[in-house]
Amino acid sequence: MSQLLLGIDLGGTNIKTALVNDEKQILAKESRPTNAQDGVEAVLDQMAEAARAVAKEFGLPLEDIAAACIGAPGPLSQEKGVVYSPPNLPGWKDVPLADHMSHRLGIPCIIENDANAACYGEFWMGAGQGSQTMVLLTLGTGVGGGIITNGKLLRGVDGTAGEIGHMKVQGVGGRTCGCGATGCLEAYASVTGMLQTAREGLESGVASMLSGSGDTLTGETIAVAAAGGDEFATDVMNTTARWLGIGISSLINLFNPEKVVLAGGMANAGEHFYSTLRKTAASQSFEVPANTAQIVRSTLGNDAGVLGCAGIALDSINQ
Amino acid sequence: MSQLLLGIDLGGTNIKTALVNDEKQILAKESRPTNAQDGVEAVLDQMAEAARAVAKEFGLPLEDIAAACIGAPGPLSQEKGVVYSPPNLPGWKDVPLADHMSHRLGIPCIIENDANAACYGEFWMGAGQGSQTMVLLTLGTGVGGGIITNGKLLRGVDGTAGEIGHMKVQGVGGRTCGCGATGCLEAYASVTGMLQTAREGLESGVASMLSGSGDTLTGETIAVAAAGGDEFATDVMNTTARWLGIGISSLINLFNPEKVVLAGGMANAGEHFYSTLRKTAASQSFEVPANTAQIVRSTLGNDAGVLGCAGIALDSINQ
Repeated sequence: MSQLLLGIDLGGTNIKTALVNDEKQILAKESRPTNAQDGVEAVLDQMAEAARAVAKEFGLPLEDIAAACIGAPGPLSQEKGVVYSPPNLPGWKDVPLADHMSHRLGIPCIIENDANAACYGEFWMGAGQGSQTMVLLTLGTGVGGGIITNGKLLRGVDGTAGEIGHMKVQGVGGRTCGCGATGCLEAYASVTGMLQTAREGLESGVASMLSGSGDTLTGETIAVAAAGGDEFATDVMNTTARWLGIGISSLINLFNPEKVVLAGGMANAGEHFYSTLRKTAASQSFEVPANTAQIVRSTLGNDAGVLGCAGIALDSINQ
Repeated sequence: MSQLLLGIDLGGTNIKTALVNDEKQILAKESRPTNAQDGVEAVLDQMAEAARAVAKEFGLPLEDIAAACIGAPGPLSQEKGVVYSPPNLPGWKDVPLADHMSHRLGIPCIIENDANAACYGEFWMGAGQGSQTMVLLTLGTGVGGGIITNGKLLRGVDGTAGEIGHMKVQGVGGRTCGCGATGCLEAYASVTGMLQTAREGLESGVASMLSGSGDTLTGETIAVAAAGGDEFATDVMNTTARWLGIGISSLINLFNPEKVVLAGGMANAGEHFYSTLRKTAASQSFEVPANTAQIVRSTLGNDAGVLGCAGIALDSINQ
């Protein structure tokens, strides 16, 4: 009989839950509001309720599920099963999430940080399926990421590995990053970084459809202007793609991966963006790994995290 | 009974050979000239002769050795056991080294690139012992490296992973690297990079003990001048240490390693060099992994490769 796994993706806004078997079939799935303002206990109850709901939808008791994994925002300790104090879960402080959920569900529960869970999702069921070494970059307000080496999540000693957004791409004279360091990839290749590139140009008085857009400037308005033929907006997109290509070239030289998967809002950029970043990545890395590494878009989108959790639950019982 | 492993480090100048048991005891060791100019067959015969010599020294037949690994200069395919065309082994082209040596020695033989072998040596018996995740940087003419994740060598899909010297640390406006890319760590933090930093300063007319040294400028003369209080030489060493710290900060954020091990000539630099690079690495990476990562000097020196080969041979039969 196939093994049943439960994935729960605990976000600041929604709790996503999925029941998946070890043949990667999604048996049941749901999403409900987190209502984080109701406090820790209420959120834990919601997750337990969601777990019971998907089990019931598939018509079996919770006890038939082999294991569960909850993806949560960091900082957290995967090993200890404790969530420290995530900015988007107000009131959470040193919550032993794995223990709480094991107790509530009566099945083995582990936790994983959400970026790693999304990476594992793409590796197990998405764009990285079939690879042994892959890298995920999540391009949003920041640049998040996760890394699979030899078929396993790279967690590092404290579980903090995979901070791809905080590789240095401009070590001297680079932008200050939100993390306090200088010249991080995130300072250039996130939406925030792209907006800074645009603002710096606009402030210098360049002519563009975007001139005077002030606070209404977003990643989308830049993409739309570029698609509409605006030269400056196209330059901004190209610059961002090149920085991303530079960061990816380092990853290709370090990891020699089969796949580099891009997720998050900016991953939806058009073919020109991908062609620019692929060209930069190839020209800045060694030929053999550059030819091997396929730079592709996420296929699971927002479900990567919850499905990755199910995969991590399976991995935890197969170890 | 403990298992016996044979490590052979095939360098352009010397062939080093060691017999090691699975309790990490070195039972016999020797070194002899490679005499690469005598051609492929002669070098293969030398390696077989060296293997028989260490077995004889320990008083047992070759057949009692469980496995051997030969560390060789790249490019090579670890998986196929083939050495392509290493610059410092003239006349070698697509040599099936693993097959040749298995045939000559009558025991299972695999091959590994020399940088990975040195990394595995430090992991198995040296400065990285006891860690699960570690990074080795070899600081010489170039910056080589190797990476251990989850207790395994990170080889990547084609076996080209671990090119630490070719992470980008200055993506825009950076130096051209020997690899053809721009802003690689190697262009700043190798001896070659340090010499370029010194030459750029000297050409601008700075006052220094090194002024007018021309072709006699070396890593050693810079280190000696710095130790003698020369301000410019000290600046050059500090600049090099900071670049190295920047590169290491990326590695700390990506891998969250227990150990970052420095090998090669520049690793022998003094405490001031280490303190500068440690300070930079810590200030440019996240606090938790920065506190965990110990940046230390290699303890095996030139024996890292041959001992790493023995360890890799053991790993190959334990898989």
